Amino acid sequence: MLDFVNDYSEGAHEKILQRLLETNMEKLSGYGTDQYCESAKQKIREACECPEADIYFLVGGTQTNATVIDALLEQYEGVVSADTGHISTHEAGAIEASAHKVLAIPHKNGKVTAKAVKQYFADFYADGNHEHMVFPGMVYISHPTEYGTLYSKKELEELSIVCHEYDAPLYLDGARLGYGLVSEENDVTLADIASLCDAFYIGGTKVGTLCGEAVVFPKNNAPKHFMTIIKQHGALLAKGRLLGVQFDTLFTDDLYLTISKNAIKTANTLKEALKEKGYTFYIDSPTNQIFLVLEDERLKQLEEEAAVSFWKKADDNHTIIRLATSWATKEEEIKALIEIL
Amino acid sequence: MLDFVNDYSEGAHEKILQRLLETNMEKLSGYGTDQYCESAKQKIREACECPEADIYFLVGGTQTNATVIDALLEQYEGVVSADTGHISTHEAGAIEASAHKVLAIPHKNGKVTAKAVKQYFADFYADGNHEHMVFPGMVYISHPTEYGTLYSKKELEELSIVCHEYDAPLYLDGARLGYGLVSEENDVTLADIASLCDAFYIGGTKVGTLCGEAVVFPKNNAPKHFMTIIKQHGALLAKGRLLGVQFDTLFTDDLYLTISKNAIKTANTLKEALKEKGYTFYIDSPTNQIFLVLEDERLKQLEEEAAVSFWKKADDNHTIIRLATSWATKEEEIKALIEIL
Amino acid sequence: MLDFVNDYSEGAHEKILQRLLETNMEKLSGYGTDQYCESAKQKIREACECPEADIYFLVGGTQTNATVIDALLEQYEGVVSADTGHISTHEAGAIEASAHKVLAIPHKNGKVTAKAVKQYFADFYADGNHEHMVFPGMVYISHPTEYGTLYSKKELEELSIVCHEYDAPLYLDGARLGYGLVSEENDVTLADIASLCDAFYIGGTKVGTLCGEAVVFPKNNAPKHFMTIIKQHGALLAKGRLLGVQFDTLFTDDLYLTISKNAIKTANTLKEALKEKGYTFYIDSPTNQIFLVLEDERLKQLEEEAAVSFWKKADDNHTIIRLATSWATKEEEIKALIEIL
Amino acid sequence: MLDFVNDYSEGAHEKILQRLLETNMEKLSGYGTDQYCESAKQKIREACECPEADIYFLVGGTQTNATVIDALLEQYEGVVSADTGHISTHEAGAIEASAHKVLAIPHKNGKVTAKAVKQYFADFYADGNHEHMVFPGMVYISHPTEYGTLYSKKELEELSIVCHEYDAPLYLDGARLGYGLVSEENDVTLADIASLCDAFYIGGTKVGTLCGEAVVFPKNNAPKHFMTIIKQHGALLAKGRLLGVQFDTLFTDDLYLTISKNAIKTANTLKEALKEKGYTFYIDSPTNQIFLVLEDERLKQLEEEAAVSFWKKADDNHTIIRLATSWATKEEEIKALIEIL
Repeated sequence: MLDFVNDYSEGAHEKILQRLLETNMEKLSGYGTDQYCESAKQKIREACECPEADIYFLVGGTQTNATVIDALLEQYEGVVSADTGHISTHEAGAIEASAHKVLAIPHKNGKVTAKAVKQYFADFYADGNHEHMVFPGMVYISHPTEYGTLYSKKELEELSIVCHEYDAPLYLDGARLGYGLVSEENDVTLADIASLCDAFYIGGTKVGTLCGEAVVFPKNNAPKHFMTIIKQHGALLAKGRLLGVQFDTLFTDDLYLTISKNAIKTANTLKEALKEKGYTFYIDSPTNQIFLVLEDERLKQLEEEAAVSFWKKADDNHTIIRLATSWATKEEEIKALIEIL
Repeated sequence: MLDFVNDYSEGAHEKILQRLLETNMEKLSGYGTDQYCESAKQKIREACECPEADIYFLVGGTQTNATVIDALLEQYEGVVSADTGHISTHEAGAIEASAHKVLAIPHKNGKVTAKAVKQYFADFYADGNHEHMVFPGMVYISHPTEYGTLYSKKELEELSIVCHEYDAPLYLDGARLGYGLVSEENDVTLADIASLCDAFYIGGTKVGTLCGEAVVFPKNNAPKHFMTIIKQHGALLAKGRLLGVQFDTLFTDDLYLTISKNAIKTANTLKEALKEKGYTFYIDSPTNQIFLVLEDERLKQLEEEAAVSFWKKADDNHTIIRLATSWATKEEEIKALIEIL
Repeated sequence: MLDFVNDYSEGAHEKILQRLLETNMEKLSGYGTDQYCESAKQKIREACECPEADIYFLVGGTQTNATVIDALLEQYEGVVSADTGHISTHEAGAIEASAHKVLAIPHKNGKVTAKAVKQYFADFYADGNHEHMVFPGMVYISHPTEYGTLYSKKELEELSIVCHEYDAPLYLDGARLGYGLVSEENDVTLADIASLCDAFYIGGTKVGTLCGEAVVFPKNNAPKHFMTIIKQHGALLAKGRLLGVQFDTLFTDDLYLTISKNAIKTANTLKEALKEKGYTFYIDSPTNQIFLVLEDERLKQLEEEAAVSFWKKADDNHTIIRLATSWATKEEEIKALIEIL
Repeated sequence: MLDFVNDYSEGAHEKILQRLLETNMEKLSGYGTDQYCESAKQKIREACECPEADIYFLVGGTQTNATVIDALLEQYEGVVSADTGHISTHEAGAIEASAHKVLAIPHKNGKVTAKAVKQYFADFYADGNHEHMVFPGMVYISHPTEYGTLYSKKELEELSIVCHEYDAPLYLDGARLGYGLVSEENDVTLADIASLCDAFYIGGTKVGTLCGEAVVFPKNNAPKHFMTIIKQHGALLAKGRLLGVQFDTLFTDDLYLTISKNAIKTANTLKEALKEKGYTFYIDSPTNQIFLVLEDERLKQLEEEAAVSFWKKADDNHTIIRLATSWATKEEEIKALIEIL
């Protein structure tokens, strides 16, 4: 049975597991104070070209979003996000559980525009009653987005300008960042992100690790006592080495980008074939997620041979599905899927 | 200077102040356990035709919404509301501050439809990922709405059916309930509301009291230890008598409805005159709030003689304003305003 | 039946009610922006000799504590308090409900000592694991305390020094402040408190108003957007006039202190008589609360003629009760009680 | 350099890493729905002799405590704990961050007694003001405790009786459970714990895994929608396999108890030697943590050759340190340490 359900179906990249094995019996200090965490941070600082960056390793994406957003906001502030943003839809209210409102604005292909964000801030401060409202305190974006789309460098620059105009940190959720960075459509580097955002995370879980997300505050701007905030959110791993070793490996010899390319290459092969066969795409995604509109009858047949992800109903007879490739997808899997389709 | 800014510009109805004066030096027990609270509860039970109702007196509207909603929801649940609902816009994130998400759906004239609510629930449970989402745990409506509009009895019945189908309490915010009950367009009684809703509050602040809202759980269905929850929300008044005496007076000899009628009568007079003069209404409100579209030039003149409430810009040259009447509005104020307009 | 249960059994002082009556039909702006709030603030600034003070009116004590403490603390901080402090015992977890821990330390007659507070901070920072612990972020004291005791000026000065040493605001809960200020044992003025504390509140509910507490940030040091924080806590009264008029009256012609004296005078008369009769006091309180140890048999008789407050069991045959006087207590009530006792 | 700082200095037991390696490239479903999680749950059910148990895998201890406690408590309830309990001291306020108070009672050797707990409940309900207080809603214990001590079966039975009397779940934090189960002093089995507690967790992080704690609700009594609550707390691992494979291995062929024995055996060897040499113990711990009182001069020498954990100062010239053994401690390390000491 083929499986294109998501990009976290396998364990870790073999080099990562290998390093965990090699370092396993070393006695290391806890809570991220070990040498592998330190080495990983240094390599990430270099990759981001921000030697002053504060870096922390957390375990998962929802946890990371909740912790960072809670740390960046004042109690009277909320976080502006596309209405399709992960924090707005699929995190079980984790942001609200730490008492902050998600201020959702309509998305465009999963993205927010600088114009819409600027309008939101302007409308807020123009409202005579704004002291009775939740202050927009920061902006959340995901890159790639939940629809696999990407911000251009110009779009990020514009967002950054608006955010700084309103003194609101710009935070980028990079759960699938690797897949964005190596997409052919992408014109944004890690250094650009570090320069334009006030905080972001480099996702490991979906790009080759067993778990782990690296939070970067690029300008030596981590919130005060952030380690305690991490602990309070239940996000401080005792054996921080598990994260340190993984990210140290991921940022050695460009492994992060190298394995990311596999996801894009296999996705592109698949997309080409599907285009040729005349399939309809729900959205044109340049990364590792492919959104397809299928007749329900056709879907039923497909599901006998391949597991895919249900997205939503398109109409009474059609369904939108998602096919995800990853660092682990094999060419033969793609071939097999193309044959079926 | 005339003043139509809102419906809480004056103090309390004179009969209420009078009763406060008469009972002032009686020694009474605290926290709502006094005889006036008890008497007020009994009169409200009669007015609502629900002898089994649990009734509590809180101080203000936002506080009441936050306390009731927090008490009714489980931690994994949010509250469905029109995107124009007070809890969604003008309560400074009080709902989120107690860790619950407001699940906003598009309004129709300030209202939600049973159909839209049903669709929201159906979509939620149809989503394979719904365990990663905030469960819709209750439905919030306001009556009259923030736009002065009213639910018909039929609409309430339909909402009630959907709510019960999904085991979600229906909660009605009655900050201006009196003004709704006596509107000519209204076909809903207090008894209907008590029968169709699982919780609601009868607003005092905007209908004749100095402060105070009466929360009604009509079916003996107050949340367990609700008094402690009130206390935890900082909403338990030591001198509960202040609320008890006011509501006892308000529900003696139909005072609540009698004084509400004044707001509707004066609003109707005003609306008639405005229609005759050819003014444009932003929305057709059957209660005490009138939404008017004015040329900016015209507004400037008006503001020299009457204070009104800015609502929002209609376009570059026009502004929407709100004129509010109340239990305290005098016929001569209306006449004077009509002359100016 | 006599009643010494508490100091909030009556309504408001007659002058306050009178002013509410006189100003009742004036049209005033909402949410504390009216002229009476402004006037009251000015008079309080004068009484506190701090012309730069930021002042806000809230409705009740628990609400005020929860709002101020939440506003002053960072998310990784808790509030140091005597284990007998109101926030630690009788506020239904309102502090924790806004996500902050009460860091309780042992009381001495209801008070904390500068030495104990200093030790707490020193121990905290000496602990190698303190990043895994709740940071002590401010100090809460009540004056008079829950046992009716008072801080001396010297004690307050010492606390203030420790607090500033650790950059932790000192916050004074003045629910019964008036009764402390006029006690013969007291050597602290409002100006002292304004000079030594970073925030405090002047209690109205227990000293002559229907409701209301005046929060003072004496050094123009209100937390940013404090009005929004008040709103978020459900503590913003629409008819702010209710609080403004009451405090304006309370701070006209020294009414606050004048009526406070009545409580102390009647309490002193009662204490003298009880001492003469050989009664045992649980604690020596210099203010309006008297804690008495009674044989259970004796208590039973007393309760047939006078309502008192059960405090706790002293032993198998004795009970500690509290007798409270107030601004409203009459000499003849005291006489009657002495006769019974 | 020797290292006895803690019991989480190494990675995972080799069999666990081996299984992670073997299963690494299998495509598995996410969020704990894979076959290894299922198999691990089944084995744990067998080990606990509770075939009806609901089992969930979380990542770390603080996270697990915060999630379970938040799920078990109503909003007006707090959790009773020894004042030395981990949740009360070293979790950065994670319990309060989800709005619940830790109701600390004095410990005895790190434990609470049934008598003290019963008294706490009795006093609470005897207090006339208890509706203004935080309701004790559950009881938290750790086994072994933070001092390495153990509850006897009798003590657990008594606690269980009190808890059920007051309808309060008994929750056991088993961060180091394995080390307790195999101690010679222990008379409690996993089946006893499953029978006497309403919830508990079997700690992996400190007993052989890279991370992971297995939460057991032994009577099919998981809180409703517990998975969503886990997600909301940021505690749901995408690659649930990481936890499933580890616990599946840990509960195959008794690995959990087998490797736990190593910690106890090495600790016992060390304790014997220390006793012979006349060292003073701060507390008599029957598990893998040894608390030693050392002269400061002696400690300085020791620290040149072995890393140990500072606990607290005993007096001006003495310090209490903790030496921890674990599943990974080698006999030769113990020998070397004994020689130094």
